[in-house]
Amino acid sequence: MTPQSEDFSRWYLDTIRKADLMDYTPVRGCIVFKPDGFELWEHIQEAMDKRFKETGHRNAYFPMLIPESFFQKEKEHIEGFNPELPWVTEAGGEPLEEKLALRPTSETIIGHMYSQWIQSYRDLPVLINQWANVFRWEKRTMPFLRTSEFLWQEGHTAHATEEEARQETMQMLEIYREVVEEVLAIPVWKGQKTPSERFAGAVDTYSIEAMMKDGKAVQAGTSHYLGENFSRGFEIKFLDRDNQFKYVHTTSWGSSTRLIGSLIMVHGDDRGLALPPRVAPIQLVMIPVGPAKLQAKVMETFDPLFDAIKQAGVRVKTDLREETPGWKFNEWEMRGVPIRLELGPRDVDNNQVILARRDTGEKITVALDQAVDTIKQLLVDIQNNMFQKALAFRDAHSHLDVDSLDQLNELISRTEQEGQPSGWVLAGWCGTNECEAKVKEETKFTSRNIPFEPPAVKETCICCGQAAKQTVWFARAY
Amino acid sequence: MTPQSEDFSRWYLDTIRKADLMDYTPVRGCIVFKPDGFELWEHIQEAMDKRFKETGHRNAYFPMLIPESFFQKEKEHIEGFNPELPWVTEAGGEPLEEKLALRPTSETIIGHMYSQWIQSYRDLPVLINQWANVFRWEKRTMPFLRTSEFLWQEGHTAHATEEEARQETMQMLEIYREVVEEVLAIPVWKGQKTPSERFAGAVDTYSIEAMMKDGKAVQAGTSHYLGENFSRGFEIKFLDRDNQFKYVHTTSWGSSTRLIGSLIMVHGDDRGLALPPRVAPIQLVMIPVGPAKLQAKVMETFDPLFDAIKQAGVRVKTDLREETPGWKFNEWEMRGVPIRLELGPRDVDNNQVILARRDTGEKITVALDQAVDTIKQLLVDIQNNMFQKALAFRDAHSHLDVDSLDQLNELISRTEQEGQPSGWVLAGWCGTNECEAKVKEETKFTSRNIPFEPPAVKETCICCGQAAKQTVWFARAY
Repeated sequence: MTPQSEDFSRWYLDTIRKADLMDYTPVRGCIVFKPDGFELWEHIQEAMDKRFKETGHRNAYFPMLIPESFFQKEKEHIEGFNPELPWVTEAGGEPLEEKLALRPTSETIIGHMYSQWIQSYRDLPVLINQWANVFRWEKRTMPFLRTSEFLWQEGHTAHATEEEARQETMQMLEIYREVVEEVLAIPVWKGQKTPSERFAGAVDTYSIEAMMKDGKAVQAGTSHYLGENFSRGFEIKFLDRDNQFKYVHTTSWGSSTRLIGSLIMVHGDDRGLALPPRVAPIQLVMIPVGPAKLQAKVMETFDPLFDAIKQAGVRVKTDLREETPGWKFNEWEMRGVPIRLELGPRDVDNNQVILARRDTGEKITVALDQAVDTIKQLLVDIQNNMFQKALAFRDAHSHLDVDSLDQLNELISRTEQEGQPSGWVLAGWCGTNECEAKVKEETKFTSRNIPFEPPAVKETCICCGQAAKQTVWFARAY
Repeated sequence: MTPQSEDFSRWYLDTIRKADLMDYTPVRGCIVFKPDGFELWEHIQEAMDKRFKETGHRNAYFPMLIPESFFQKEKEHIEGFNPELPWVTEAGGEPLEEKLALRPTSETIIGHMYSQWIQSYRDLPVLINQWANVFRWEKRTMPFLRTSEFLWQEGHTAHATEEEARQETMQMLEIYREVVEEVLAIPVWKGQKTPSERFAGAVDTYSIEAMMKDGKAVQAGTSHYLGENFSRGFEIKFLDRDNQFKYVHTTSWGSSTRLIGSLIMVHGDDRGLALPPRVAPIQLVMIPVGPAKLQAKVMETFDPLFDAIKQAGVRVKTDLREETPGWKFNEWEMRGVPIRLELGPRDVDNNQVILARRDTGEKITVALDQAVDTIKQLLVDIQNNMFQKALAFRDAHSHLDVDSLDQLNELISRTEQEGQPSGWVLAGWCGTNECEAKVKEETKFTSRNIPFEPPAVKETCICCGQAAKQTVWFARAY
């Protein structure tokens, strides 16, 4: 496996293949989510879906195929998505009268349906989510992070007032933060996108942004206040309490299988994957050690211990294959299992077990009758420690003292020379597209978001030196 | 709402719209699964997925787009599916070199991947399931039962031996039977499809078949033993223990959102939906009754009772809207909620509640402190009663004494005159395609399956009168 420091992309591609998370396919830009990769997504789905339902949302399913004319109804939307669309032009042996796009997102078809469903303020709010496959025919792809077909959820809500729609936008952004920070142990910055990075058709776009171990950014979830853009395009009107017809205010919000990629790039190391306990398909692997002839004796303790650990709600697996313990240790480390439990004949004699942590490499010896409690506590500790480690990494690679393009270029060349990630810079921005474009052109750093709670407030624009209107995270991004 | 006896299709279409389960869309043959319809699917998914995992299967996700050349590799497969495929011919602003089909089922792409993954007997069995959207461009559509896009699961497994693959085929058929009978309360016949009704590319196809209230059949799940047909087409070979290269034996099995349609057509009546408790999104609705001025008094009992019922794990909802109790009773009956709980001031005085069953219309009065236990028992009883009712209906409309086409035609005209469902006939069959085709041509009755445990054994072919090789269920089918 290529070390991270040598070539991070290579390391990533090696790791996800070796850990059996995905495979390439003959369909351009499309991957197979293999069971070990897909199960990560199932745990993410479970965490998200629970929170969506707790906040009153319900799931539905809308057609994947969208008539070409639907895209025309919101001008910015078609401009943003048209270059990336795959089109169905024939079906059932005949050419279609109107070609149908494979959905890149569903604002248009959902907007059309909402215009039929919403008549009165009594029909509001509409709070619907959809789990679905979507398509964006990307030129450059990267497994999980950018593929032609990917899986996601997209929430689409309609409200009587701007205030309520804006509250919804923020509520869902906060749910994304909570799942990504608390379940995936990935620290994020909540903030607003600059106009050039807005979703095509949104009034305001908000995001959570995460730093990978190569210092690059991933947008880990977005939430859009769409205003009346889509309700005007699709005529979604309602009769309000005051007997006036009004356009609804809509929102949309999405998170995707990109999160799998982020999870790997934030926590993985040169030994392979490292999975936070809350999202790990296997939280603990049990491996018997010692000479084969003593195996029967070990199993007398091993089997009831397995039952007790499983009973305690831990996702536990045993590895009884014929390979050597050392081979198994490497295998499960590479697959990122948070805790390894070893049990040998001497441990049985001493009424103890060995627990090894994937996150720190630390090994501890625990009394057998304390094993279950210790494991439960350890899972909590590992989850916290992995978050803290990722946070410390992020902060160590966040630069708050870069105040000009020269300084940014200098940072980039210095870190590149050192073989270190250049990381992110928190910079002032005058608010013009020109300056944002120039930063990108000269450094490939793009604006990530305008954080709600910036760690500092910058006074001057990193590009033109004029007074800053915003304090913005800039970084190279996936 | 049209009564069932007047026009069953009309009743079905009225009911699913009125109960807000679906909506039509501008995309030909594609529907929206609205939240109340989709939630039925979520409960079905949950019941299936749990059993798939318990039997060692794991979920994965394969690309939706399948290159045209893949379909050519299994001759019967392409012949079976080609007329129904939608094709992507352009993407990202350019025509594609090879057109891509929207999957109608995934044997081909999965076969291709398995040929990469399987090298040795140690790699077997491969036990993978996928939850996905699929496309079959149907000429005549019917919401849930036959739509151009639908949702399903498709299992795809590969085994070292025919015996093991055949066991898998039967195991999954039994899981379908279990979920459909025990969760959806729909009795089914397990059996084998005749060759003309086999899945395109299968060696043997098995199904579970259910009778709707109009006497027509729905295939509620299928499981296929594919033999070496796909492993030869896609070169899925493995090195066996005996050091020989062999082709794997594959299976596939699927169940879909058709089950939602079956659920409605089996249990619904002229008052609307009737949902078995295990699949009902709402198992019990609580409605306060009596004069508005006494509402506060009622709520003092109502609220803690709600908490206690919820605590007991019942999916409970309260209806506190301003409409009259009578209006609400009709509304929740129409939506199929198994139990309605009424609580008025007099009930509070008498320490009692009223429970009304959707399945029998029966109303019982129960002491307040017995309410939770009674509800739990009632949910079990209703589940059983709904199954028994459906079973009695099915058996009453299953004809075991029809031994010729004349008798079948007579049965059809007699039942049509009476305004009754013609139902199913259990008939002998000589085993020739000709006789099967003639039955279909003359009566529109098609072979459903050859039941494993037929209620009788027929000696002569219903068509030619020759010795029967099989005893087969014939029926009109969706």
